[in-house]
Amino acid sequence: MQTLSINNKQKLQLSPLNIPERLLLGPGPSNAHPTVLQAMNTRPVGHLDPAFLATMDEIQSLLRYVWQTENQMTIAVSGTGTAAMEATIANAVEPGDVVLVGVAGYFGNRLVDMAGRYGAEVKTINKPWGQVFTIEEIRQAVKTHRPAILALVHAETSTGARQPLAGVGKLCREFGCLLLVDTVTSLGGLPIFLDEWGVDLAYSCSQKGLSCSPGASPFTMSQRAMKKLQQRKTKVANWYLDINLLGKYWGKERVYHHTAPINLYYGLREALRLLAEEGIENSWQRHQQNVDYLWERLEELGLTMHVERHFRLPTLTTVRIPEGVDGKAIARKLLDEYGIEIGGGLGELAGKVWRIGLMGFNSRRESVDRLVDALKKVLP
Amino acid sequence: MQTLSINNKQKLQLSPLNIPERLLLGPGPSNAHPTVLQAMNTRPVGHLDPAFLATMDEIQSLLRYVWQTENQMTIAVSGTGTAAMEATIANAVEPGDVVLVGVAGYFGNRLVDMAGRYGAEVKTINKPWGQVFTIEEIRQAVKTHRPAILALVHAETSTGARQPLAGVGKLCREFGCLLLVDTVTSLGGLPIFLDEWGVDLAYSCSQKGLSCSPGASPFTMSQRAMKKLQQRKTKVANWYLDINLLGKYWGKERVYHHTAPINLYYGLREALRLLAEEGIENSWQRHQQNVDYLWERLEELGLTMHVERHFRLPTLTTVRIPEGVDGKAIARKLLDEYGIEIGGGLGELAGKVWRIGLMGFNSRRESVDRLVDALKKVLP
Repeated sequence: MQTLSINNKQKLQLSPLNIPERLLLGPGPSNAHPTVLQAMNTRPVGHLDPAFLATMDEIQSLLRYVWQTENQMTIAVSGTGTAAMEATIANAVEPGDVVLVGVAGYFGNRLVDMAGRYGAEVKTINKPWGQVFTIEEIRQAVKTHRPAILALVHAETSTGARQPLAGVGKLCREFGCLLLVDTVTSLGGLPIFLDEWGVDLAYSCSQKGLSCSPGASPFTMSQRAMKKLQQRKTKVANWYLDINLLGKYWGKERVYHHTAPINLYYGLREALRLLAEEGIENSWQRHQQNVDYLWERLEELGLTMHVERHFRLPTLTTVRIPEGVDGKAIARKLLDEYGIEIGGGLGELAGKVWRIGLMGFNSRRESVDRLVDALKKVLP
Repeated sequence: MQTLSINNKQKLQLSPLNIPERLLLGPGPSNAHPTVLQAMNTRPVGHLDPAFLATMDEIQSLLRYVWQTENQMTIAVSGTGTAAMEATIANAVEPGDVVLVGVAGYFGNRLVDMAGRYGAEVKTINKPWGQVFTIEEIRQAVKTHRPAILALVHAETSTGARQPLAGVGKLCREFGCLLLVDTVTSLGGLPIFLDEWGVDLAYSCSQKGLSCSPGASPFTMSQRAMKKLQQRKTKVANWYLDINLLGKYWGKERVYHHTAPINLYYGLREALRLLAEEGIENSWQRHQQNVDYLWERLEELGLTMHVERHFRLPTLTTVRIPEGVDGKAIARKLLDEYGIEIGGGLGELAGKVWRIGLMGFNSRRESVDRLVDALKKVLP
């Protein structure tokens, strides 16, 4: 049949997958809930199968519930959280738009880079990593730069800081700009009231507070943001993430756009189902109680948290690496000897902190105990 | 803790997922291999875990093997096939580049739309849906338009036609342009010799010839294409798919870019492992033998294939809907009464053909028998 000969140089002879068991207490992914993995194990059906379309509708409703929004355009993007982040930028930004970004960590910087690629005139306000912006600082910056879009990170995964959002939406309406918010490390783990807060665009991921596997990522857009999209003079510069096209697949038209990651949607549906069963307010409370316990136990070990208590995330804690301790070596020891993953610092905090996550299914007292017991053994 | 009250309007009370069993014989997704689903059921580890990085390396080697390429930059993109398609365009096209696209179906048109969004000056050559271009037609068009990139669809999923590629790469070198090829419905199912053919950029998906679930998609890029990328004057206008950044995660640096869809990579690794075990040339042969049997059985039913035999894909067959038959109703009956999915026509072929796939794990004699038996009962 073929006339050319086969090159077998890259043909590895492999055994079936053999992956070690890990307790994932880093910045994410977190361990998926066992029944989520079970749901993902279901045989795929077609992306236009009536049974699959019903699953998509359920995902939409439950995402609205966990985000506390009534936004019609609430979907899961077929990629990881970064893709959902890019979807908000790609659809909201038109070339020449002024985009004001609050930068106090790695993900603020990423928003700057992305918005620039979509032709935005980017302005920033900055704070040291681990701090947050006051409403007065935000008002002053909006007044100065008059942006079309204000982008803030609710839960900065690189620092463990929680940016308060109450009042920001009202301010954005006063100045006629859209409010875009990163909720990657907050969704499911701490209070979010998107509609009450007046957030216009938000994105998240599946593998943290939702206890799912990564790859299908929450995205939502308000009517105000939809209006800006409809009035665009240029096409969205990203075909895969164009909400004009995606909306026709998730909406009543059911027009083929791309083949959805079927099995991940099965998992996401199950993850959201479990969260609704628990009650979102109970999940928030559980995360806070378990992180309070973590902070207490870490302080007993003589460790210090990087972020001021009032602004700490319940999902992700940055812990200062004590003077003279090799942070990387400790993390590697935890992984190799105890099967526990924690994260290192990024950017300004590289080498200065560990990042410890208690997210979704992993936000349990036993996770804290297992980590602290291991830390006691590996710390000098 | 929170002061606002919870909105429970979107809080559905759901039972665990209950998805019907389907034999997926449409244009994709195809059924995943059972051991692939089993591998996907493995608990996630971190995206920088040494065990996961080893899995990524294995995926890279085996993708090179199934594509028959030595391209260093061979990876899986964290999205479905459309994302991998967009990755080739986003990284190869600079604003103002002339991109020549061969359009003889839906996916040729999609390449036109995408390339335009990245600022290309798009030129096309066109053929009726179901036909292919001769090397002389391609040479004439390249001579006329002098493109920076020639984009062709090897396996047009909307028509079932196979575009011959021998000689095209040589022609592209003669005229100093890159050759970009869609292998979404060909990878694993029919002969591809990327390096011998001189292909510079190619993409595919996981849920067809590879027998995996959708969501992690093969992407490859030659040294010539990498050189063009390195010489860009503008940033790649897509952060998520920027190969400059992705290359540092998949390469030696292991710089964090995004959280990979861990469980899908487990599945993809298993799917590729199975394909290497079978031998890529044996998989090609199996696909051809089973589709020969399909065509024979369909002809016995008095049905006609849309594409000339020599250019038919072994993975996807377009069958003409007989005069007076309601094609949609037949497909719905197959799904509802026999649990078999087949596809309808798109664009020029809407209402005129069914699309029948025999891909990866589903390319078996039993698939053909089950479909033909059901067709006998539902056809008027």
